[in-house]
Amino acid sequence: MRTVDLIHKKRNGGQLTRGELSFLVDGYSRGEIPDYQMSAWAMAVYFQGMNARETAELTLAMARSGDQVDLSPIHGIKVDKHSTGGVGDKTTLIIGPLVAACGIPVAKMSGRGLGHTGGTIDKLEAIPGFRTELTQEQFFEQVNGIGLAVIGQSGNITPADKKLYALRDVTATVESIPLIASSVMSKKIAAGADAIVLDVKTGSGAFMKTAADAEALAKAMVDIGAEVGRQTSAIISDMDQPLGYAIGNALEVREAIATLRGEGPSDLTELCLALSAQMVVLGGQAPDLKTAEAMLRDRLASGAALDKFRAFVAAQGGDPSVVDDPDRLPQAPAIVEATAGRSGYVQRINAEELGLAAMLLGAGRETKDDQIDYAVGLMISRKVGDRVEEGDPIAWLHAGADDEKTRQVAERTRNAYTIGNAAPDMQPLLLSVVTAAGVQRYSQE
Amino acid sequence: MRTVDLIHKKRNGGQLTRGELSFLVDGYSRGEIPDYQMSAWAMAVYFQGMNARETAELTLAMARSGDQVDLSPIHGIKVDKHSTGGVGDKTTLIIGPLVAACGIPVAKMSGRGLGHTGGTIDKLEAIPGFRTELTQEQFFEQVNGIGLAVIGQSGNITPADKKLYALRDVTATVESIPLIASSVMSKKIAAGADAIVLDVKTGSGAFMKTAADAEALAKAMVDIGAEVGRQTSAIISDMDQPLGYAIGNALEVREAIATLRGEGPSDLTELCLALSAQMVVLGGQAPDLKTAEAMLRDRLASGAALDKFRAFVAAQGGDPSVVDDPDRLPQAPAIVEATAGRSGYVQRINAEELGLAAMLLGAGRETKDDQIDYAVGLMISRKVGDRVEEGDPIAWLHAGADDEKTRQVAERTRNAYTIGNAAPDMQPLLLSVVTAAGVQRYSQE
Repeated sequence: MRTVDLIHKKRNGGQLTRGELSFLVDGYSRGEIPDYQMSAWAMAVYFQGMNARETAELTLAMARSGDQVDLSPIHGIKVDKHSTGGVGDKTTLIIGPLVAACGIPVAKMSGRGLGHTGGTIDKLEAIPGFRTELTQEQFFEQVNGIGLAVIGQSGNITPADKKLYALRDVTATVESIPLIASSVMSKKIAAGADAIVLDVKTGSGAFMKTAADAEALAKAMVDIGAEVGRQTSAIISDMDQPLGYAIGNALEVREAIATLRGEGPSDLTELCLALSAQMVVLGGQAPDLKTAEAMLRDRLASGAALDKFRAFVAAQGGDPSVVDDPDRLPQAPAIVEATAGRSGYVQRINAEELGLAAMLLGAGRETKDDQIDYAVGLMISRKVGDRVEEGDPIAWLHAGADDEKTRQVAERTRNAYTIGNAAPDMQPLLLSVVTAAGVQRYSQE
Repeated sequence: MRTVDLIHKKRNGGQLTRGELSFLVDGYSRGEIPDYQMSAWAMAVYFQGMNARETAELTLAMARSGDQVDLSPIHGIKVDKHSTGGVGDKTTLIIGPLVAACGIPVAKMSGRGLGHTGGTIDKLEAIPGFRTELTQEQFFEQVNGIGLAVIGQSGNITPADKKLYALRDVTATVESIPLIASSVMSKKIAAGADAIVLDVKTGSGAFMKTAADAEALAKAMVDIGAEVGRQTSAIISDMDQPLGYAIGNALEVREAIATLRGEGPSDLTELCLALSAQMVVLGGQAPDLKTAEAMLRDRLASGAALDKFRAFVAAQGGDPSVVDDPDRLPQAPAIVEATAGRSGYVQRINAEELGLAAMLLGAGRETKDDQIDYAVGLMISRKVGDRVEEGDPIAWLHAGADDEKTRQVAERTRNAYTIGNAAPDMQPLLLSVVTAAGVQRYSQE
């Protein structure tokens, strides 16, 4: 088999066999196939696509390229959740305890973030004492015991995907639906999930600009799940602004706690409930979404979800009293207002810019070795559609100091808001659910 | 400027500016842009194409990447000829003296061949004593004196094209018309020609499988010429079998001499006259093709073309007596027949296979260091459309020995012929002329 022939075949619209895809992934993994052939192949895939069978086989080949986690010591159906991410996305902190409180075992391996704010691991470490380095035995025991554990990703998961992703990033071959889908799904499959719920965002700030693109990506991932025997469903949501109001590690933990208490922002609550309901159904704890959602609302109202979070924090060495007294979380020494430059309605919020503002305050890492300041970040006070008067605060910056740099970030925050005269047309948050059965649009109730 | 952005722009169907194309070519030349980005860009070009302006600017950037030959010490309009090559292509040996006899200065830099038979340089060196290493001064003097000189390509012509071509070869990005066109034209422009005549072949054995593809390639090259101020025209010919009857270095010299004497095979003569006529017109020695062709036929009939060849051989140290007594060329010790396996009409000849047969006899190089045997090769005796009886010779192998290996090559030669019951439909050899004014199809007279 010659790599150039496989590139040629894909370039001409042919379909690669399982053996051919394994040859490419394994050869590339081992360094036998050079970057310059793999990038030409990726560009050919960008133009010619891959069918569901090819995409699934590429996914499996990448999943097999490194360690594959065996979650069988954990009882029950392990349902994993993946989010395409976004500024202020703290859904994992809420969904974990929420579905665990419904009997779904949550054995989550999560990453540290590079970018605007930390990853889930960083957010959890904002809780004093919280440890994410458990042995595999401790990890399994904790999930079997209290139903929930989160550890840092270790080992060598999907090295082929990591290498290919880095190459795609510098060769303009990221935006290919089968390549994105196989990248996401290979990691989830290698991480050992039995079933997978995907949170796919659309909107001008998201990776998938249109609902149609987001649905196509979701369908590709759901199809992979079907091909490899891992039930998969996806929620498409419109996310052109931060989720909730908090951006920054401790600030997001605080908002997650409020949400688990039933007092969270409506968009965050709504998305968490929708994703959790899918997980509860896939995990076999409810026969349908309606029943699942009722269970979930009950767990919020009864305090069961918050109790689960408290037990989880304690089990991993964190101070459980933060759950009842969030002021015990790290607090920034200075709070600086960013104010509206004019009166009107918020038309758009550039979430990317707000994320950057949080990073400039110290909430995220620009390089792997940067230290995160857990306390800092932004609490925004206006979202799209809200009325604001000139001079009103639109956000509070939680900062290390009230200095020139912070005031520059406040200016940047102000500029991330577009304010106009008329109230903007509001899009519903939840657009559709994609399952093996097809796409179902949310009705606008 | 970031390479990834330029790949992205081309991938999305954008047009690169002159500055962007120079950035790519210069950066790649200097090793600052890695192969993996260049191959992704080449694949994007494969799918999105390039317009005439982009193709011309890419060509110029590649022409500038190395040495650029200055032919200004040579008087007159220097017209170069390029052939896309083919088995048994000895056109340069004929056209050089023929157009020189019409007053067109021929200052030819030519390559050694890697493949079936040698290149023009190797063919000339089959003439005892012939030298192709002239100094630049000797080269210019000889052209100004007798109108014709051929030297081996030296120096560092279009290194960017060499590097890119090698990359395209292993990344399935060869078959892109703007990339092929810019590769060919960059070399001709760097070699200093004022005007260029292109011999573009089509047919199942050629690079361009259809006349439409060949015309599109020719048009792309003619357009480059127009953009950069070098008048260019192209002849499209259908070449599904060897040109003439001889394949092998000394055998081809002998056939070239016969053609210059006016006794050559009709296909070879016809193509040489058509290409030469274009050169004579572009070189300003005739007002139109009709006049040019009359001049050329006169030079064949009068012996002027043969005289020019004789003077050329003598000027470069070769034995001019071979021109009148071609038996003085190297001769193979053994001649072995390949015979027809059945009676009928020759339907097809696999020229590639005959080229391979010649190489196996020793006429070509498999690797750069192989030694060529000038004497060996094939003289075929039947071409497409010819009637043959079972057991008749279809080719004579000129070989080092009448041994088992030679008999295997004879078997291979026999198998390169497809013989059927009916006479095949014959295609005309010359299909069209492509100039800046457009495409003109040859009428079937």
